[in-house]
Amino acid sequence: MPKIVDHEERRKHIAAVTWKVISEQGLRHATSRTIAKEAGLSQGALRHYFSNQESLLQFAIELVKEQLIERIKRLKEKKLEPVEQMNEYLLEFIPTNEQTLLEMEVWFAFVTLAKTEKNLNPDLVGLQTAIKDVIVFLQNEGVLKEIDVELEQEKLYALMNGMALNLYLEPAKINREKSKELIRNYLESILTQKR
Amino acid sequence: MPKIVDHEERRKHIAAVTWKVISEQGLRHATSRTIAKEAGLSQGALRHYFSNQESLLQFAIELVKEQLIERIKRLKEKKLEPVEQMNEYLLEFIPTNEQTLLEMEVWFAFVTLAKTEKNLNPDLVGLQTAIKDVIVFLQNEGVLKEIDVELEQEKLYALMNGMALNLYLEPAKINREKSKELIRNYLESILTQKR
Repeated sequence: MPKIVDHEERRKHIAAVTWKVISEQGLRHATSRTIAKEAGLSQGALRHYFSNQESLLQFAIELVKEQLIERIKRLKEKKLEPVEQMNEYLLEFIPTNEQTLLEMEVWFAFVTLAKTEKNLNPDLVGLQTAIKDVIVFLQNEGVLKEIDVELEQEKLYALMNGMALNLYLEPAKINREKSKELIRNYLESILTQKR
Repeated sequence: MPKIVDHEERRKHIAAVTWKVISEQGLRHATSRTIAKEAGLSQGALRHYFSNQESLLQFAIELVKEQLIERIKRLKEKKLEPVEQMNEYLLEFIPTNEQTLLEMEVWFAFVTLAKTEKNLNPDLVGLQTAIKDVIVFLQNEGVLKEIDVELEQEKLYALMNGMALNLYLEPAKINREKSKELIRNYLESILTQKR
């Protein structure tokens, strides 16, 4: 068994190095040569773990997703009241610190590349569903006023993507409390008055 | 004089070719070699017009801006009522057809590259101001309820950027009427009840 663990660990290390290269030098420089060098591997050894750039990038993005799922799992364990829980949940999808900014940088690099490299799969549907389900969840909790569900889902999805994009473009503006306030303000616009 | 006109025309032609290459092949392939070939020029001739890739990309993005300004100028001449005017104005910032989708593709490629190439200037402040001024304009027209101006400006800016990003990522969803409805729905959330 130890060999398998090492292999997986090494793959994760290479993915982390890839993130760093994308973040610091841009996707243009995330070549197998640069990544092998930064990871302290030969290009041949790198190919042993990832046969091409696409599979490496795909793995790097899967790790972003895994980490997000892990954070959401921990959040659920906190058992917050529904609106607060959804506010915190939505915050997980935008950069609120250096780690999540790095994830966002990898994600943007990936989706931009996926526009022209059709064998990359950014799973936009999964992301969209994860955001849009917030409206359904709150509706099932009975805390929403009468709304056009589909329209509000589109609005929330746009709002979240826009916040993420803005913070990606201007990381100096990252401020967890301000982002939380903006999301809260949106949620309040669809909550029943009595709250 | 004719020589100057030709020079400018040629620069615009090269910029248009650059857009096409970025859109179809991705920024990675927008090299001087590919662009020269697509524009029917030698690399030496291309250098005569743009000494490096950065100056070419910067020019390409200035053209995007010019075209946006031109469209807004024409919109103002229509003399619509304030809310409808702002709805139409905001629509100009997101993809609603093939031409504006192409502009968005160039813009995203540019801002992504500007993250690591510090001599590129995407003028995010100009864009931000152009969007945020909508709230001020409507407030001056006396059609808004009591709102937190700064927060609503952030919300609108995020909403617009998110809509643009979503349509860039999934161009099949481009639908002018649906986008207009989403913006209208947002504007209505801050308009006075009596409207």
